[in-house]
Amino acid sequence: MRMPAMAMMILTALWTMQAANAQDEKPPGSSQNPQNGDFRAFWKEGLNFETADKHFRMKIGGRIHNDWVWVSHDDSITTAIGDQEDGTLFRRARLYASGDIYENFFFKAQFDFAGGDADFKDVYLGVKKLPTIGNVKIGQFKEPFSLEELTSSNYITFLERSLPNVFAPTRNTGGMVYNTAAEDRVTWAVGVFRDTDDFGNASVEGESAVTARVTGLPWYEDNGGQLVHVGLAGSLRGPNDDALRFRQRPEVGLSDRFVDTGNFEADRVTLIGVEGALVYGSFSLQTEYMIASVDSEPATDPSFSGFYVYASYFVTGEHRGYSKTEGAFSRTKPKENFGVKGGLGAIELTLRFSMLDLEDDPILGGELTDITAGVNWYLNPNFRVMLNYILADLDNVGDADILALRFQADF
Amino acid sequence: MRMPAMAMMILTALWTMQAANAQDEKPPGSSQNPQNGDFRAFWKEGLNFETADKHFRMKIGGRIHNDWVWVSHDDSITTAIGDQEDGTLFRRARLYASGDIYENFFFKAQFDFAGGDADFKDVYLGVKKLPTIGNVKIGQFKEPFSLEELTSSNYITFLERSLPNVFAPTRNTGGMVYNTAAEDRVTWAVGVFRDTDDFGNASVEGESAVTARVTGLPWYEDNGGQLVHVGLAGSLRGPNDDALRFRQRPEVGLSDRFVDTGNFEADRVTLIGVEGALVYGSFSLQTEYMIASVDSEPATDPSFSGFYVYASYFVTGEHRGYSKTEGAFSRTKPKENFGVKGGLGAIELTLRFSMLDLEDDPILGGELTDITAGVNWYLNPNFRVMLNYILADLDNVGDADILALRFQADF
Amino acid sequence: MRMPAMAMMILTALWTMQAANAQDEKPPGSSQNPQNGDFRAFWKEGLNFETADKHFRMKIGGRIHNDWVWVSHDDSITTAIGDQEDGTLFRRARLYASGDIYENFFFKAQFDFAGGDADFKDVYLGVKKLPTIGNVKIGQFKEPFSLEELTSSNYITFLERSLPNVFAPTRNTGGMVYNTAAEDRVTWAVGVFRDTDDFGNASVEGESAVTARVTGLPWYEDNGGQLVHVGLAGSLRGPNDDALRFRQRPEVGLSDRFVDTGNFEADRVTLIGVEGALVYGSFSLQTEYMIASVDSEPATDPSFSGFYVYASYFVTGEHRGYSKTEGAFSRTKPKENFGVKGGLGAIELTLRFSMLDLEDDPILGGELTDITAGVNWYLNPNFRVMLNYILADLDNVGDADILALRFQADF
Repeated sequence: MRMPAMAMMILTALWTMQAANAQDEKPPGSSQNPQNGDFRAFWKEGLNFETADKHFRMKIGGRIHNDWVWVSHDDSITTAIGDQEDGTLFRRARLYASGDIYENFFFKAQFDFAGGDADFKDVYLGVKKLPTIGNVKIGQFKEPFSLEELTSSNYITFLERSLPNVFAPTRNTGGMVYNTAAEDRVTWAVGVFRDTDDFGNASVEGESAVTARVTGLPWYEDNGGQLVHVGLAGSLRGPNDDALRFRQRPEVGLSDRFVDTGNFEADRVTLIGVEGALVYGSFSLQTEYMIASVDSEPATDPSFSGFYVYASYFVTGEHRGYSKTEGAFSRTKPKENFGVKGGLGAIELTLRFSMLDLEDDPILGGELTDITAGVNWYLNPNFRVMLNYILADLDNVGDADILALRFQADF
Repeated sequence: MRMPAMAMMILTALWTMQAANAQDEKPPGSSQNPQNGDFRAFWKEGLNFETADKHFRMKIGGRIHNDWVWVSHDDSITTAIGDQEDGTLFRRARLYASGDIYENFFFKAQFDFAGGDADFKDVYLGVKKLPTIGNVKIGQFKEPFSLEELTSSNYITFLERSLPNVFAPTRNTGGMVYNTAAEDRVTWAVGVFRDTDDFGNASVEGESAVTARVTGLPWYEDNGGQLVHVGLAGSLRGPNDDALRFRQRPEVGLSDRFVDTGNFEADRVTLIGVEGALVYGSFSLQTEYMIASVDSEPATDPSFSGFYVYASYFVTGEHRGYSKTEGAFSRTKPKENFGVKGGLGAIELTLRFSMLDLEDDPILGGELTDITAGVNWYLNPNFRVMLNYILADLDNVGDADILALRFQADF
Repeated sequence: MRMPAMAMMILTALWTMQAANAQDEKPPGSSQNPQNGDFRAFWKEGLNFETADKHFRMKIGGRIHNDWVWVSHDDSITTAIGDQEDGTLFRRARLYASGDIYENFFFKAQFDFAGGDADFKDVYLGVKKLPTIGNVKIGQFKEPFSLEELTSSNYITFLERSLPNVFAPTRNTGGMVYNTAAEDRVTWAVGVFRDTDDFGNASVEGESAVTARVTGLPWYEDNGGQLVHVGLAGSLRGPNDDALRFRQRPEVGLSDRFVDTGNFEADRVTLIGVEGALVYGSFSLQTEYMIASVDSEPATDPSFSGFYVYASYFVTGEHRGYSKTEGAFSRTKPKENFGVKGGLGAIELTLRFSMLDLEDDPILGGELTDITAGVNWYLNPNFRVMLNYILADLDNVGDADILALRFQADF
């Protein structure tokens, strides 16, 4: 009965806040008559609707990520993991509707149909610009953990997020309080979540998780053309049915998991993530370190960790986009679109080193190290072709060479 | 070969009607040139498109219902039904597109992605304002039975409809003729349906069902602020594979079924439902009684029934919305939105008594009685938070205490 | 590693082309500022958005096909295939978003929720109007094979495509180069594909397929009111896991497969399709012949074929719509909508002979011949009711009589 208490706490906070709000000189949502402002429809990296007073906005959109993968590997991989076939995969195929209504309320309903079912992605509702606490969001969405995880898959630098991403809790159902202000240099978020299935549901024995993240921009100039991002996140989690499992693919969606702890007993797990990134014009660096420390009734308290660092360089002169409200990277628009007055689009060269250690006696999940070299071609702000060559080294087993190509559109 | 006859009958009726229509002074659909009227896009409790002559309209929308449930119960419930875990559930997560085109034609395609599959919820097309017969609808939609069932889940008073709702046929695939007129005090509907799966399909041995409903408003004043609704519905059904099963949860989505007849032989079943409701300003009452009488080849012709009555009161002065065209309750808009000039939103207090008897020797499905107390908080016309406390008493077994919280957005 | 070569080839071609493009006098996409042109929203057989310069367009739509089927058949069919029940079926229930952006880029994401999962239909992105090569499309879409297959299910003449349609590869994931020009009399398309599952994925042993089609209009007058269409298509395919299976229903969606080769060994298969069609005002003829020649390691190289011919006549004076850019039939709009000034809508009478031979010793898949008579009623440009009577004769087994009714809306 811990959760009702928390829910009540949030409701009470909301209540108190609105009372404070009552004295506001210019109260939010003072002119909420949509009849006064019909929707203006327009393209802005997607289909947008907005009233003149901007109190009502809607977006309808989606994304298509189609991957083509070719693999060759040592026979030892076949023996240990199984044979890896070449193939094609819709890594993501999503539709969504989202909106801001009555000035301070927002919602999003996004589903991913890749694989034929309707995975819940962002399915939430919330209230924003509450005094003191900022914003409240309830439903399914990403827990505030990891710079790379919180960067949309439309904007990540490689086809797949790095190996340590296995520790990031990603989307679960819960409630979160967070701030988000374009004028600030700091973001913070703290939320309470249940570990839920792909559809946002949980009704098994399990405790809730508390996850929090703080990010800052010690250096930010030139409208994001030069910046240093630092971040720290932590999560305290009581796994469902007191069991945990970490397993990861070698940074390509169409592959078996190369490392896998199997299920093991875990009463509590503590996650810590440290983030750093530099944008210096066309050049950027990004790195994260994550560790998962497990508490279990038996004497063994295993601990696992991972790490990545990567560099990116736009040969065509763009710089990586960054969102101050998200504390994460965002859309990069090419200076010239492909095919326009001889424009090439934008070309980005990328290089990553990534490692994941799922071994801590007696749990022998394996140790995987990836080196990835890539080229990203931004044809226009919404179309991207990505090419990655991945050399995956599974410790004590063998190597796999992977070539992966992604055709990506978001709208 | 009964259905082709019926289909032919409907087609013939349509044909005859349009001939009659030919003499109309102002024929429907006389100015059907959409080029004359581009769409105006606007927010009206959702994203709407409408031509100037209103002959073409479209809506794109959806709903999010996220439930949080905490249960405690007697050990006897564990023994009889199984242990009930706390949890979270997306009870509904829908997207839809609907439209009125060429003045007299309409369609809707709505899918519910809760649980990861795409349940069909209202997937139909139709013709309206035909002389004499009114409107014709074909596809998957709700059979005309039960006031509470025909009230959208966005507008129901408690998290779940009442226990006897197990008898309401809800959505099936069929054809229906019905009237709907905002100026009338009476609605009627009669339809022929097949018992279909969650996706509107049936290809097993089974007869069709005939379902009809009539409602009236003996008292209606003050734009719905004061009204008495009465209704009567009946359904004659030939179950698929001559088998029937009634089972019901204790008015919370995240729970096992507490009562369950199991499959039993049934050649025919007759459903009768009686409805009554009163709105007297902020106060309202609603009640329904339903009975299912089964005919089966063996001597035993079991009969099951259920009943509920509930009261609701808006402490903030609103009254429940009612739709004369639907003969059902509709959206309640708060007088002031939450957070606007100190507005609280609307607060509704609710109380329900509900019972379901699935026992008729030799079928011992159980008898369940629920008492529910609740608070609904309407933050704005589209956002609602609902809190229900349910005391469920399973006859001869034991009790469960349930606390359930819903966060709801529709758009 | 054959596919990377092909992918590289396409990328290289694109690159070269854009260089050539650089010298264009009026380069494509020269005025790509959407801020200059907000979207105009309008109905044109669906919900459309378009900027003033037409460089950005979006559509949001879908389709509903609801079938009702009644079957009677010889007892011998029950013995050989199983009993065929009457029933109802949502044959298609789709939603999609598509767009043309930055003048030369396009995408579409369309999903079919019939049956409850999210089958991938058209899910692709592409670049158009490239010099020399024309258009490039990547993702999942229909392979260029068969006039009837490439005619949208919204516009086909009978409820189901003809028996030989079993040979048409329909949708797979791949890349295609094609031309499409409304002013031309010739279309061509060539693509490379992987045999993928219903969700566009493949990661099993399998070679890629190459499929190409050419169509021409030796006669085209009166804005499509009089035309002769001829076409030729071929496909070279390396089936997944070196296994192949052809099986087909008797031209009704709600039926078991009457003919079925079962799985057989196949290293390669060559498909050839020949198309012909005539539109002569309200009267039209259409015919196709398809053959599948299999190469397998064992001596036996079986070969299967099918054929259909059909006639259609609009008693209300319309003619079948034809799209020169698709090289396929398109929407027919009734001269008068149903219910408008006594309008009936359009009435089309149809008759088809269709046969499929899946017998080639030692593979005895059966031989099926269908005769279908039908009536299509177009209530307005977007609504259609179709009625088909099918006499299916399964060689050496027996006959089935099928009556099938479809209610169809697209938007």
